[in-house]
Amino acid sequence: MIDYEALFKISYGLYIVSSGEGQKGNGFISNTVFQVTSEPPRFATCCNKNNFTAHIIAEHGAFAVSVLDQNASQDIISRFGYKSGAETSKLEGMRLRTGETGVPVVLNDAIAFLECRVIQTVDLGTHLMFIGDLVQAVVLDSANPPMTYEYYHKVKKGLAPKNAPTYIDASKLAKPVKKEGAKQYKCTACGYIYDEAEEAISFADLPDDWVCPLCGSEKIDFIEL
Amino acid sequence: MIDYEALFKISYGLYIVSSGEGQKGNGFISNTVFQVTSEPPRFATCCNKNNFTAHIIAEHGAFAVSVLDQNASQDIISRFGYKSGAETSKLEGMRLRTGETGVPVVLNDAIAFLECRVIQTVDLGTHLMFIGDLVQAVVLDSANPPMTYEYYHKVKKGLAPKNAPTYIDASKLAKPVKKEGAKQYKCTACGYIYDEAEEAISFADLPDDWVCPLCGSEKIDFIEL
Repeated sequence: MIDYEALFKISYGLYIVSSGEGQKGNGFISNTVFQVTSEPPRFATCCNKNNFTAHIIAEHGAFAVSVLDQNASQDIISRFGYKSGAETSKLEGMRLRTGETGVPVVLNDAIAFLECRVIQTVDLGTHLMFIGDLVQAVVLDSANPPMTYEYYHKVKKGLAPKNAPTYIDASKLAKPVKKEGAKQYKCTACGYIYDEAEEAISFADLPDDWVCPLCGSEKIDFIEL
Repeated sequence: MIDYEALFKISYGLYIVSSGEGQKGNGFISNTVFQVTSEPPRFATCCNKNNFTAHIIAEHGAFAVSVLDQNASQDIISRFGYKSGAETSKLEGMRLRTGETGVPVVLNDAIAFLECRVIQTVDLGTHLMFIGDLVQAVVLDSANPPMTYEYYHKVKKGLAPKNAPTYIDASKLAKPVKKEGAKQYKCTACGYIYDEAEEAISFADLPDDWVCPLCGSEKIDFIEL
């Protein structure tokens, strides 16, 4: 028996993983970055094969990890989480630093960054796992805590995008108990749920120019659950 | 340049990873458990080759992950984190459940558990990474939050044991600013630091039968930093 709620008990952070050359590079939001050995310090990250950045990491043999601030703006999460780098230039206008391997490091809303040179790539089916030796690690802001996936999920009500290793189809989750008459509306673009039971205003009464707080999609892109 | 403080910005949970057959099995404390693909749900965990459980997972081809409660006792962390299963029977007296693959699942102080069948093993140098397909996932306690590594590090003042992927030699970290005259004493067994600046009583004035709150070592096992 698999209770998908149990999967939410696994703890993660929230990061921008980037690669490529300067502004021509690309990045995506990842929650799977983790240290795999201590000596030498070595890190791994998982990346969907459909993700444009996967191909860039494979080509450049290096990646950077920007650790998002707990107060990171929804703008930056939407920019890197729900838009494909094949269509838009995600790094344009961002504050960037060039790493020792030449990859771009995103500094916006980041409290620290790591940079790794890939030593091994593991094929996991839908995803590739890149394993890299740490070549640089810098603290940018020691005052603020990192954004955790738990915080993003609970406080910011974010769901994992479709390409994430932790993506869960909402239909697999138990439905929460609803307030009398309260309905839920789901953004078909990113999965964000507008739950009337937790909001002050009904979905119907939201203004026409209201957009999804997570990905910026329009009201018309929501479906009733 | 590598600032090891940056490595503490990566978020993890805290788990007991177990394998084997019933009470003859073994388990260890791990902070590196993470989902690597969504379809099928697939998880990875890293295990030091010196760790007795690594050999048991390799032999049995399956492992269980107990997600520790944020309020998990120090006893259980010491039991699974700082003692080798080659010398003691870690599972004796524990509340166990037998998984679908036959591995023992530790239920003490756990809010959920996962069980995985190994499909791939990656050699990472000092560590092995076991990648497994999820065969079972159960929530045991939906009220309490999971223990995060951050919480363990900050609130419980725990350090990673030597076999952990995230182990950092304390000499690589910047020394904290000390109160006038306050000294720090480090447990040579587990790395726990008794910092007089944060304690009500000096180390010298601690009773002779005082033991390390993390691993139970005696006062004589501490060195002044």
